[in-house]
Amino acid sequence: MIIESQDDVTAAVLQEMHRTPNARTRELLSLLVKHLHAFVREAKLTEREFQDAIGTINAIGRQTTPSHNEAMLLAGALGVSNLICLMNNGAHGTRPTQANNLGPFYRADSPRCADGESIVRSPTGGAPLLFHGWVKDQAGKPIAGADVHVWQSSPAGLYENQDPSQAEMNLRGIFTTQPDGSFSFRSVKPAGYPVPTDGPTGALLAAQRRHNMRPAHLHFLIHKPGYKTIASQVYDPEDPHLETDSQFGVTRALIGNFIRVADGYELSFTFVLEPGEARLPKAPITQKVAA
Amino acid sequence: MIIESQDDVTAAVLQEMHRTPNARTRELLSLLVKHLHAFVREAKLTEREFQDAIGTINAIGRQTTPSHNEAMLLAGALGVSNLICLMNNGAHGTRPTQANNLGPFYRADSPRCADGESIVRSPTGGAPLLFHGWVKDQAGKPIAGADVHVWQSSPAGLYENQDPSQAEMNLRGIFTTQPDGSFSFRSVKPAGYPVPTDGPTGALLAAQRRHNMRPAHLHFLIHKPGYKTIASQVYDPEDPHLETDSQFGVTRALIGNFIRVADGYELSFTFVLEPGEARLPKAPITQKVAA
Repeated sequence: MIIESQDDVTAAVLQEMHRTPNARTRELLSLLVKHLHAFVREAKLTEREFQDAIGTINAIGRQTTPSHNEAMLLAGALGVSNLICLMNNGAHGTRPTQANNLGPFYRADSPRCADGESIVRSPTGGAPLLFHGWVKDQAGKPIAGADVHVWQSSPAGLYENQDPSQAEMNLRGIFTTQPDGSFSFRSVKPAGYPVPTDGPTGALLAAQRRHNMRPAHLHFLIHKPGYKTIASQVYDPEDPHLETDSQFGVTRALIGNFIRVADGYELSFTFVLEPGEARLPKAPITQKVAA
Repeated sequence: MIIESQDDVTAAVLQEMHRTPNARTRELLSLLVKHLHAFVREAKLTEREFQDAIGTINAIGRQTTPSHNEAMLLAGALGVSNLICLMNNGAHGTRPTQANNLGPFYRADSPRCADGESIVRSPTGGAPLLFHGWVKDQAGKPIAGADVHVWQSSPAGLYENQDPSQAEMNLRGIFTTQPDGSFSFRSVKPAGYPVPTDGPTGALLAAQRRHNMRPAHLHFLIHKPGYKTIASQVYDPEDPHLETDSQFGVTRALIGNFIRVADGYELSFTFVLEPGEARLPKAPITQKVAA
């Protein structure tokens, strides 16, 4: 159709979107145009602001490398990552879920460990931590033989692949749940850490006077055929940034109960899996940062 | 705030957006989050679709070079560029406007020409075109002394900076309006041309079975202090892609009346300027494509 005025633009574009043969693609593109145009109209976006937005969008991809995913970082800083996660887990958002963002530091090839083993592979410092986990189904029945991938930052706030001073695969391991659904490992209490601020996400946080910290947490990825694979994070309730996570990842269901013991901390946590597709995610980064 | 479930995510993010000190930035970010989350929720975006979207966003910037702006191309293919243009011209979209997208091929440093001069600078082929233009204010009064930048594709559908066979600055020039507000030049009738399809915009068009053509047009940029600088395009009514412009740029007000004469075509067109800021745009590309 020929556009007469600004009123016609959205209808003209939607008419083209509706020609898309694949039904889901058609739905997604139509909704994208509807909401994108609604944003532009409600914001009364100026030509200069539009030019700036185009520059920002191009900058996202330029900032992305094999060891850094700027679009994912920005999606987190706008709360989209956790919204997607919560909508798609816990029976499509209708039940509490232990699912959480995978995060950018998952590596696919961590070493397999015996139950109770330590994942500290080089001198790491910090308070010792003993973790007891359980994996259950929605009826509370133990799930045996599930693979539990574990990874975390050091007490300095760095993952091993960011930090040449840590041994390869330090603070990473894969455990298998016992017949009672339990698994356990020894480690150290993680620290919170800053997300990178040298790209568009940093500009966003600076414009908002938001800090760039993530509260301290441990990562888990739980995988067994017959159950929906979930990524999860368990957060430290004492972290000063718990309520202002720059990635909006913290949920009430994932705040751990760290117990002080003589020589450090103990933490117990139960993960509930729902039926669904078991699918290991693609590791978000493919290269270790150079030393 | 601590998020309990998916219902809380948007409120938690908006609470952070509301802390932004600058009022306009706060408004833009709040509206961005509102509409972005509304899209995600209404589309019931899956985790896999979200991963794909992240990949596409990163691909936009990777496709962008000093001679190609993929974000701008994609904004055109989603109708956003023309929406922005029509909203911000013609007394904020309330009156007809001759404003149109600047497009990616504007160069800032075209040669100045005498009235009536030809902009054909190397053998170009195609039907000769004599263009008569007028520049007026909203009351119909002629505007003398306005700079009119003119540029267009060749009858092969290529701009000189894409085509080593054309002379530098072929089919480009800057004219100055006469005391009666008129300007004129000689050229050749332009041809429609395809937009690049080797990036995310190409994937979008392919998924929709949309062609990647732009209907034939001439470009204008009209600049005089005291008037809002406008970019404009005048389209060929005989072009087969007039109603399906892959960039949604065609408006009724910009379809030219090409008159067949003995040795080619004549085209007359009146541009109306409104009061406002005279500001030359930054040229979207900074490098000529290598031969």
